[in-house]
Formats: sequence, structure tokens, C-alpha cells
Amino acid sequence: MTAALLDTLRQTVGAAHVLTEGDLSAWEQDWRRRQRGRALAVVRPGSTAEVAAVVRACAAAGTPLVPQGGNTGLSVGSTPDDSGTQVVLSLTRLNRVRAIDADNLSMTVEAGCILQAVQQAAAQAGLLFPLSLAAEGSCTIGGNLATNAGGTQVLRYGNARELCLGLELVTPQGDLWDGLSGLRKDNTGYDLRNLLIGSEGTLGVITAATLKLFPQPVARLTAWAAVPSMQAAVQLLALAHRHLGAGLTGFEAMGQFALSLVVRHMPQLRVPFAGMEGAPWCVLLENSDSESEEHARARFEHLMELAFEDGCVLDAVVAESIAQARELWHVRESIPLAQAQEGLNIKHDISVAASRIPAFIAHTDALLAREVPGARLVTFGHLGDGNLHYNVQAPEGGDAAAFLREQEPRVNALVYDAVAQHGGSFSAEHGVGTLKAETLVRYKSPVALGMMRAVKQALDPHGLLNPGCVLLKQ
Amino acid sequence: MTAALLDTLRQTVGAAHVLTEGDLSAWEQDWRRRQRGRALAVVRPGSTAEVAAVVRACAAAGTPLVPQGGNTGLSVGSTPDDSGTQVVLSLTRLNRVRAIDADNLSMTVEAGCILQAVQQAAAQAGLLFPLSLAAEGSCTIGGNLATNAGGTQVLRYGNARELCLGLELVTPQGDLWDGLSGLRKDNTGYDLRNLLIGSEGTLGVITAATLKLFPQPVARLTAWAAVPSMQAAVQLLALAHRHLGAGLTGFEAMGQFALSLVVRHMPQLRVPFAGMEGAPWCVLLENSDSESEEHARARFEHLMELAFEDGCVLDAVVAESIAQARELWHVRESIPLAQAQEGLNIKHDISVAASRIPAFIAHTDALLAREVPGARLVTFGHLGDGNLHYNVQAPEGGDAAAFLREQEPRVNALVYDAVAQHGGSFSAEHGVGTLKAETLVRYKSPVALGMMRAVKQALDPHGLLNPGCVLLKQ
Repeated sequence: MTAALLDTLRQTVGAAHVLTEGDLSAWEQDWRRRQRGRALAVVRPGSTAEVAAVVRACAAAGTPLVPQGGNTGLSVGSTPDDSGTQVVLSLTRLNRVRAIDADNLSMTVEAGCILQAVQQAAAQAGLLFPLSLAAEGSCTIGGNLATNAGGTQVLRYGNARELCLGLELVTPQGDLWDGLSGLRKDNTGYDLRNLLIGSEGTLGVITAATLKLFPQPVARLTAWAAVPSMQAAVQLLALAHRHLGAGLTGFEAMGQFALSLVVRHMPQLRVPFAGMEGAPWCVLLENSDSESEEHARARFEHLMELAFEDGCVLDAVVAESIAQARELWHVRESIPLAQAQEGLNIKHDISVAASRIPAFIAHTDALLAREVPGARLVTFGHLGDGNLHYNVQAPEGGDAAAFLREQEPRVNALVYDAVAQHGGSFSAEHGVGTLKAETLVRYKSPVALGMMRAVKQALDPHGLLNPGCVLLKQ
Repeated sequence: MTAALLDTLRQTVGAAHVLTEGDLSAWEQDWRRRQRGRALAVVRPGSTAEVAAVVRACAAAGTPLVPQGGNTGLSVGSTPDDSGTQVVLSLTRLNRVRAIDADNLSMTVEAGCILQAVQQAAAQAGLLFPLSLAAEGSCTIGGNLATNAGGTQVLRYGNARELCLGLELVTPQGDLWDGLSGLRKDNTGYDLRNLLIGSEGTLGVITAATLKLFPQPVARLTAWAAVPSMQAAVQLLALAHRHLGAGLTGFEAMGQFALSLVVRHMPQLRVPFAGMEGAPWCVLLENSDSESEEHARARFEHLMELAFEDGCVLDAVVAESIAQARELWHVRESIPLAQAQEGLNIKHDISVAASRIPAFIAHTDALLAREVPGARLVTFGHLGDGNLHYNVQAPEGGDAAAFLREQEPRVNALVYDAVAQHGGSFSAEHGVGTLKAETLVRYKSPVALGMMRAVKQALDPHGLLNPGCVLLKQ
């Protein structure tokens, strides 16, 4: 049975693209090395038609499939379980940019295109594809769409969902739907595109997408501000919205403890206002301008003057050059690495309405101080989207591995309960995967869960696509 | 059986809110008077809990429900059929603005709020809710979301879909899901919000929504340009995107014949460049600025200079006052009325990628000239979104009623086939309703239709919510 399926798959995509031997860890192990599975085979089709044929063959054999892009997900949603019965369907060979339509501000790309390649193809046409995140050199656009990726430009341009105009996909039965479309308006029936986006490979296999493009900004300026409280940071956000309008393309907050880890582990980096008295938070702002650098700078300086007057900024610098702007972003992006060098930690990717973040942080910081004495909070993230990485580091000098072993479930429960009390989400941008499928059951409304299960059952009645991801196996 | 249901409904919402007698045409007849149905009753619940109880009672009795907001839809999607067995579920009594969260740029409103009231509540808080369309004084936000309404600001702010952060809804079984959320990022499972938005009351009843707000622009400027061809209009669009960035909030195209109907039937209106030699199209542009009117004007004038140099604009005026800007918009918005005064006509609400619109128009204009001699084309719409109202007026002096009777199905087939050939949509913003349910079957991929039917069957297995709308009864 299995041998017959493997034969069919080899005939379909060529023997060289059906991997069963050797080191398959690149496909079997998740990015953060939380889990190692074992695949029946890794299959690498080279075209949409081949994807459909592979899915049909597996469906006929009753063999589950795990779709996979760059395998950079953080919630263990694209690797097989350890049964050795699942086929990994790798999309990385579908990597053509099919078309760029400058007059329509759109491009059509295959699912396996690396995000950075998509950005570059757009830039070569003089346009901007704004999705940007840490893994952009390795992740694929198909994975970005399957997980509704976020990143640093969401404030202005939205999540991956908002950047997609149409999809080409293969259903769990192996049928092909060409829903590629450069249309901005199309009200012909249910929104299958958005149903598939963020479904993490459980409802269909995305093989290509038409994406929205934007004019390249003429200038991008970055500022770094020290603020007296989280409430002041939220006030600054409102002020920046009002005075920069759509020019506001980035708004990141970083706690002083998070910055102190960068200072400690990356002494070569200059961290403005690190450890500044009375300034528990720093904020990085980005202003993109369609006019000129001078104009962007004048707007930024005007904003900062108002912010000083309002008392929501204590001190600020505006980058004088592109190199300096990159340095500021580099500090922000170095926090996860500095944190890793400090030792193991418990990560959270949560969101709360921006207006409720000060109360959430005050509440949860106090809760953890009481319940988990000595735990150190590494808080930073996309405040403009209400999205924080609210991470918990083991006590200074303690045994971090033991801390994680003993405290992780309890810390997660404390944090996620607090998030729920403040109307937030336990997974802002990283998705559910298999890692958080039980968390979903705990925190999602039973009515919504029932609707999700009904949709899954309707589209994939035999549960062959990415079983156990998002929804627990029944 | 029916009497028992009516009793239950009267006990649930109060006898005064269960209408069975007298003139019910406001609920039974669609906006464009295409069809007149007959309801078993019109039920007007006053709260979400009452909506849920009404749905449960009807589900228990096996009685179909037709959800209805302002009943201003253009595709006959919110009125009962003529069987006298369907209950109209009117949401208009759910009309509270529940909350405005300025720091989070969001507001939560009930489904029955009139769109204009939503806009005004946002404006009173100093903020902008940008959804804007002709029926805004009568339509409800619940209906806007159920149909994914478009309108004049989509270019910058998106359709109703993009303006919604969360929904409260009642399932076909009468269960309540509180999915209200002010979150910009939430990747916890399938996108039920977008599945419901645009489902036209067939998958659940929207009872409230959290909406995105934006800073109010400081200035809004309007310009009117005469262009030498549709290709030039598309070129101007690209130029405007590049030079105004997110400031470009409106881009409407109008054919000279459409404008000539305004000149003929509304002689009091001044129509710039009406009938101008060599200028088959006029374009209305809107520039919203977060800085100042002077700045907006300078940017606009710069754009127009470039457009003259490029040859894509022959002549242009920039409104000198708000009153003048209103006048220009008023000309644009008077086209449908002028057209109605000219006589009956065949309306289309189609979209094509902006880049393909010149070819689509050249092809389809020639086709209709050949196949339907004398037919006059009233073409206008949201070119920035690729959305045109490509309407067909009876030949000058002919019998319009006879023309419609004899030609409508044939004209629709010619236009929709051409749209399909150019990769477009037969319903850009008006939805499917019952009017275009057969058209959906003709033009939608069978794979996509199969997925839609599976989703409908999964969520509403007894087909009780708005039967025959979007999907034909099986």
C-alpha cells in the first residue's frame, strides 16, 4: 500500500523529488526545535498540477499530508508527527514570480517564493511589497499566507491577509481552484480567500497568490524616543496617527529590561536612552513619506515637539542617515537574540487593544511578580498593532532549563488568563499550529470552535490535511 | 404550528414588534422594486439576546429567516420570497453605538445603526469612519458588513471587510458568538469574521461589530480632470498613487455620455469639460492630507503639472472651496439619477484589474455596438478600484421597457462574458443576492462553488437562513 503510493508519487514528481532516506531533519524538525517528527516521505512537486496530483494520490491512499513552506513557523504547524505515516508536501520548488502588473499595483507569485525574493521583485519594478519579518530570508510567501504572517509594517499595510488579492489552491480532494485575481472588489460569494489564509494548511494547499503592491516611499525616517510610562507610549501612538497619518509605518515599544539584555550581550550596539532614569520604555517610530526626506523630517520634528509639550516623550533622536536608521531597527531586532543569549525563556505572542495595554501590563507584571518571584519580563513588540512579545526569563542566575520545565505551563496559564481578561488574543501573529491547539480549545468560544470544526469537516471530511494543526484531532 | 411560532415570537420580542398585518412593503419589497415578496411575519428584536431567541424559535419550527438591515441592497438579498412562509428578521432596533475607543482607533456598534449615524459618532469623537456610499442615510452597518459594501473611499481604506475588526453574531442554530474585538492581530483559528462578512445573511446574523477608525484628514481636496483616453486615465491613476501615496482617497472616472445625461437632466449643475473635444473621459480625484490645505493643494498642483507633461491630462480644475469640492462630487453622484430620468436601463456593477480596463472597454463597447445597435453606454465608477458601473441605456427615443424586456438577458450575457474574458467580476460591490444567484453558477469555478456549498451545508444544514440568496436552493 505504502510502496504503491510512493511509486505513484515518484511517477508524479520524479524520483529525485520524493525523499525517504538520509537526513530529513530540515523538513521533520520545527524551526525552534521544539519537536522532531518522522515523515513517510518528503515530496517536492514542481508545479501546481503536480501538487494536485500528489494530493489526489494521498487522498486515494488515505495518507495524511503536511504542507510546508520555509518551515520557519514558531507554532509547530508544518512538520509531521512522529508516526512515520504523514507525507510532507514541500512547496519550495514552486518559486516563480509569474507576473507583475504595475498599473494594477499587483503581482502574482508561486507559494514557494522566498518572502525576500518577492520584496526584491517588487522593488525591481519600482514598487513595494510591505510584508516584512525576521524570517524573510527563509520563509515562503505561501507559508506567510497560510499563517497570516504579521511583522513590522502591519500598522500601515495590514497582515498578510490584507496584502492578498487572490489565491490559487488545491483542495483536500486534489481539485484545483484558480482564484488568482487582481481585483480590489469582488463580491461573488463567500470569502474563500480569507478562509484559507490563516488556516495553516488544514483546509487546502496554497500554490500561488496575487499580492497587493504599493508605491515605494520616497523617504523613510526612523526615530527613537524615551517615554515615561506605557500610558505615555499609547498617547504618543495616538499623536503619531494624527500627525503622520498613513506616513506612520512602524511603532515598536521596548522595555528597559529587554534593552539591557542587548546592552549586556551586544556591547558593540549603541542603545539610545538605555537605563535612562524615569523612562521605563523606549519607542521606535518609522515615518514613510511620498514626498521628500526634508518633508518627512519636518513632520517628524513637529510630532516630537508636540510630544515633548504633552509630556509623553522625555527625549528623542531622529536618525540622521539610512545607516543610523538601520542601527535603530537593528537594536529592536536584536532583542530576541540577546534574550536567547541570556538563556532559555518562555515566549508569548499576545495582543490586546492598544488602549488596554497599560492596564494589561500593570496587572500582569504584578501578578507574575507575586506568583513567580524573580521572573524577569522581556517585553517588546509592535505596540502600534497592540501586539507584544511578553516573554518571561528565568530568575537571574537560576537554572533556566529547570525553570521552564517547572513553570512554563503555569506561566502560560497566568499570562493567557490575563490576556483573556483584557479581551486579547493568545496568538497575535504566530498562529496556533500543533503547539497551541489545546490553548485554542481553552480560550476560544465553544460556538466559534464548533463553527471551525464544522468548516474543517465540510472541506476535509477525512481529516487528511495537516491533522492536529489548529484543531485537535477528534 | 404557525400560530404557535407567532405566539412564541410575540412573547420573545413583544407583540408590537411582530408585524403580520397592514402594509409591510417596506420589508417585503426590495429597494429597486425588482421583486415583491410576502412574509409570514416581520420580527423586530430589540437586543442580541432577542435575536438569538427568535432564531432558535424559527429553527425549532423549521421556519426560514431572511435577515434585513436598511433594505437598500441592489441584488434582492434581504426580502422574503412570495411563499408567505419566511420570517423577515429586521435588525433596525439594534441601533446603539456601544463604545468608542479613541486610543485604539475603534468603535463598537450594533448592526442596525444607520451608516451615517456611525460616521457621525466617529466624527464627534474627532475620528473618521471612512465607509461612504449613496445609501448611507438609510443603509445599516450590519447590512454593509453582510454584503461587504464598497463605495467611494475603497481605494484608500478598503471595503467594509477591511474596516471590521470583530463581529458579534447569532448562528443559524441560534447560538451567540461574541467575536467583538478591537484587535489588529489575532491568529487563533479560521477567519470566521471574513467568512460571515459578505455572506449576505446566509451563514449567520450579524448583531454588532467592532470597526476600525482613522484620524480625520486635516484637508480634503478635489480635482476634476479631462483625459484623452481610458489608457491616460489609468496612467494618471498610477501617477497619483506615486505622488499622493495614501493621500489618494478617491479616483472616479466618468464617460462623456454619462456626463451629458447630467447636463441634459440637471441643467443647474456645472459639469467641467462636458463635451470637450478629444476628451472622452473625465476623472474626479480626491486628496486627503494629514497636514494642511496648502500642503494638499501644492501636492495636487504638482501632480497635475506632471500629468500635463506626461500628456495624460488635457485640462484640470482643483476645487477652490469645500462648496466647490461638494459640487464636483455632486456631479459624479448625480449620474445614476440623471440616467434614471433618461429612462430604464440595464445596470452592471463589474470589476476588472485597472490595467485591463482600457482593453475591456474597447472590446465591450465594440461588441455592444455590433450586437445591440443603438444601445448607449453609461460608463462611470470607481476606476481606482477597477470597479465600473457599465450601464446600458436603450437607444435614443426607443421604447426602453421593451428594450429591457427583450435585451436584458442577452446584454448581461455579452457583458459578463467579456468581464470573464478579462479576468473580472460580475459583481464588484453589490453582491449576489437572489438576483444574481444563477449568474454565480454560470461564472464561478465549480470547485469554488463546491466549497461554498459545503460551507453553507456545514453551518446551516437545514438551509434556514436566507434560502436562495447567494447559492441557489439545491
